Amino acid sequence: MTGTSGKPLGIIAGGGPVPRHVANAATRDGRPVLILGIGGEADQTIEAFPHAYLQWGQIGRMQKLLNERDIEEIVLIGNINIRPDFRSMKLDLGAVKIVPKVLSLMTSGDSDLLSGVIKIFGELGYIVVGAHEIAPDLTVGAGPIGRHGPDAAGQKDAERAMIAARAIGAIDAGQAAVAINGRIVALEAAEGTDAMLERVAALREKGRLRWSGRAGVLAKCAKPQQDLRVDMPTIGLKTIQAAVDIGLAGIAVEAGRAMLMDRAEATSLADDEGLFVIGEPSGGPSAP
Amino acid sequence: MTGTSGKPLGIIAGGGPVPRHVANAATRDGRPVLILGIGGEADQTIEAFPHAYLQWGQIGRMQKLLNERDIEEIVLIGNINIRPDFRSMKLDLGAVKIVPKVLSLMTSGDSDLLSGVIKIFGELGYIVVGAHEIAPDLTVGAGPIGRHGPDAAGQKDAERAMIAARAIGAIDAGQAAVAINGRIVALEAAEGTDAMLERVAALREKGRLRWSGRAGVLAKCAKPQQDLRVDMPTIGLKTIQAAVDIGLAGIAVEAGRAMLMDRAEATSLADDEGLFVIGEPSGGPSAP
Repeated sequence: MTGTSGKPLGIIAGGGPVPRHVANAATRDGRPVLILGIGGEADQTIEAFPHAYLQWGQIGRMQKLLNERDIEEIVLIGNINIRPDFRSMKLDLGAVKIVPKVLSLMTSGDSDLLSGVIKIFGELGYIVVGAHEIAPDLTVGAGPIGRHGPDAAGQKDAERAMIAARAIGAIDAGQAAVAINGRIVALEAAEGTDAMLERVAALREKGRLRWSGRAGVLAKCAKPQQDLRVDMPTIGLKTIQAAVDIGLAGIAVEAGRAMLMDRAEATSLADDEGLFVIGEPSGGPSAP
Repeated sequence: MTGTSGKPLGIIAGGGPVPRHVANAATRDGRPVLILGIGGEADQTIEAFPHAYLQWGQIGRMQKLLNERDIEEIVLIGNINIRPDFRSMKLDLGAVKIVPKVLSLMTSGDSDLLSGVIKIFGELGYIVVGAHEIAPDLTVGAGPIGRHGPDAAGQKDAERAMIAARAIGAIDAGQAAVAINGRIVALEAAEGTDAMLERVAALREKGRLRWSGRAGVLAKCAKPQQDLRVDMPTIGLKTIQAAVDIGLAGIAVEAGRAMLMDRAEATSLADDEGLFVIGEPSGGPSAP
């Protein structure tokens, strides 16, 4: 992190352990951190670091807290489960000031909320950096994670599923696909990866899909237009458990362009169950 | 049908009314027909034409019946619901003769059963023609069927869904996609079109997809490698009923490259419910 050492970092934190992981990585790099936990979302473990809590709508308070510490760079990371209720939200003065910008973003046809959020932070004078830029070990590197790698059939399915995931990303439809024994059996769109995996399980239960032993690969791949700073494809313990339950052979993601959450337990589960998790070099095969 | 008038036509008939529709069209063109109904599948209404019934495995009998009438061209059409039980199937001498060819096809890695069937008929000296070549009115022509056409939003969704359907066809994954208000929300793979539509309905019920009034389009499109003689994308009353139930605005297919079954009832339902069904010129927009 040459050139950033010593520069303070703000972490706007949703739920889960990852914000703390990012704070640890920044601290190791010699950067002071301030975690601003979103009320009702952030985990209490953030309190091991300099921190404060923010309620939805407290933009002015956020600016004051960041500016007091000369923080220019911020990371937005963690789960957001509660949809902010815009009607009951209390806007502070800082929030009221940006209302026209938010409204203009929302009506400009820019349907991508996250890129809108990045723009607004930019307008307020902050630079949004990716959690993976601070903690590169959050991402899946090239090659297998854990003990198992793909056999020839697994490698072929990984390529096939990755081609499918890239093709549906190119049309801005989804990120994930499943290929089993050379055949693409599921493509993700609005239902999301978990529901897509449930569908594969249901098709197997009904006998509509048949295979023996572990076979097939889930591939997950960022869309070309996806902003990896705030929205990176993610797999975790839940994904790996679903792949195990379905009887897949492995999971493939683009090296450096997907996050693995719960790394220790996820790797240990994959190792125990004989599942491979692999980072494929990006720029691999795509549909003609 | 210049050049074929008077030439006898064999129709190997599964279930439903379409085999009879093809026989009618051939008769109108001055061609004698023989319908060979598959036992347990073909509708009794085929008996209005010269006909016989075949059981699975009666290849020799089929050849005899076709050759007696100098039939060279055949159409394979209609629903097959019962999977032939290969163990209890009684092979006649004609069938036994082609067993080596069938086995060699099945083990050659040619996973496409239907193109295998066409090859076997070719080896036996027959020419397989598409039902739509005999009865072009089975297909959807260019432009809207029925009273309703798409508005600007419907046209945009039709294009978006068609781009998605082409993209997943190009990777040999599926034929159908749904776009609603500019967003691709569902892509078909192993689950099939009906299950994909049920998924869109379920996502709407759960509030994961929201729209008001009728919006969104189901597109269905042949894969580039699909043999339209025996396997053409098909929509019918059930598809239109599902689109109505979900609240879609319309259905788009490639003009001349998709069949509309139950045309009268299907059109009447679409008209009553304000749904459009449109044939888009092929070679339209596809993903970059």
